[in-house]
Amino acid sequence: MSDVVEQLMNRHHSVRKFKQEPLSKETVKQLVQAGQSASTSSYLQTYSVIGITDPEIKKALREVSGQAYVEENGYLFIFVMDYHRHELINEQIDGDMEKSFQSAEGLLVGTIDVALLAQNVAVAAESLGLGIVYLGSMRNDVARVKELLKLPEYTFPLFGMAVGVPADDENGAPKPRLPFESVFHENEYNQDKAEELAYLKEFDDEVSEYYKKRTGGKRSETWSQQIAGFLSSKQRADMLDELHKSGFIER
Amino acid sequence: MSDVVEQLMNRHHSVRKFKQEPLSKETVKQLVQAGQSASTSSYLQTYSVIGITDPEIKKALREVSGQAYVEENGYLFIFVMDYHRHELINEQIDGDMEKSFQSAEGLLVGTIDVALLAQNVAVAAESLGLGIVYLGSMRNDVARVKELLKLPEYTFPLFGMAVGVPADDENGAPKPRLPFESVFHENEYNQDKAEELAYLKEFDDEVSEYYKKRTGGKRSETWSQQIAGFLSSKQRADMLDELHKSGFIER
Repeated sequence: MSDVVEQLMNRHHSVRKFKQEPLSKETVKQLVQAGQSASTSSYLQTYSVIGITDPEIKKALREVSGQAYVEENGYLFIFVMDYHRHELINEQIDGDMEKSFQSAEGLLVGTIDVALLAQNVAVAAESLGLGIVYLGSMRNDVARVKELLKLPEYTFPLFGMAVGVPADDENGAPKPRLPFESVFHENEYNQDKAEELAYLKEFDDEVSEYYKKRTGGKRSETWSQQIAGFLSSKQRADMLDELHKSGFIER
Repeated sequence: MSDVVEQLMNRHHSVRKFKQEPLSKETVKQLVQAGQSASTSSYLQTYSVIGITDPEIKKALREVSGQAYVEENGYLFIFVMDYHRHELINEQIDGDMEKSFQSAEGLLVGTIDVALLAQNVAVAAESLGLGIVYLGSMRNDVARVKELLKLPEYTFPLFGMAVGVPADDENGAPKPRLPFESVFHENEYNQDKAEELAYLKEFDDEVSEYYKKRTGGKRSETWSQQIAGFLSSKQRADMLDELHKSGFIER
């Protein structure tokens, strides 16, 4: 096992409490360039990264998310799917490229490109001893985020990431994951329902134990209970409208 | 700069020619578990990984992609967005969770979760001296891939990845990326068109030089020319239909 595999398998957990030590400009640049080095579909590089240093904007984004660590961290990144510069090229040639940005394929390509970049940023940050937490909460109010960051057409703020030195009393630890045998399938998807349910049961027990230990018995819910609670109410029901408004998934 | 940042910034390039040395089962498991350790939105873990070892299936997937390295590699992964196990939980409680899987938000969450996992697999593989290439080409014929891998409802094959020991005559090298200043914005998106066009010009020149050097002058196209060529024809126009058929982006 390489040191990197060891880091990936054993170090990551979401950090939600940081020291007030801002990242240096040099570190920010390194992280973003590590991100840019990730694979990109057909060389399209459909991304921009917004680094937030303005306290007023951080405060406003905290309001969007409802999470203190959006304001209190070493650095705040917002990751943006970005076909705006492709649109500039399109203008130059008086072309007809919008139908590509607007397609479902364009959305998949753009979303995947951004996520590959961001995960390199996360891995790079953690290798420097920093902690990170992804912020899907930026999608709580896409219109407001677009307004705050002055995002142009054919861009979409997918998520953020808070980065920083973990606070001394930050005591997170890696959280259990679904059994490997449940996630991994050889050659074809395992649709044996009894087996699938057995894996769920195994994982439910593990998660329940994990919470009991972490909270001195105050929490004991299973993964299935968490999933049911979360997915039973439709999250961010405006997302398709917001994608349309930004020029995506149009017919 | 950590060794990991050094790896991320300077080592990655897509490898498209591999030695015929299969990965061990242990390595495959390590890679997938490194992937599972990545962040996951709201702990949903909306993914499955299919490892392809059956020569007939590899051959069929090569036909889907038109790429020899889909068949000739050390290992082939297909990464699947997966709400099937959430649907099993839904059945148990006779619930109403489908509207979450079917929403645009559900698609974003699922796609991002899969990509974060996959990028950890890529980083882990490269740290072991292996090469990788992402295979968006699996989306050339989603219906066929679903059939081959026996994928159930509420799953979607997003992309593949070929992994392996680079062939002795594999001579790829990191490819230039957009200027940092073009991708990175502080506090708000830089919509200064003259600056944006200057960055494009700078990058166009760099890419053109890169191709000239790599091909002894045979290729010299700019990035803008590549982008225009690629995005001027709508790629995979069936993607929205395919998403619908798998239970996604329904109204």
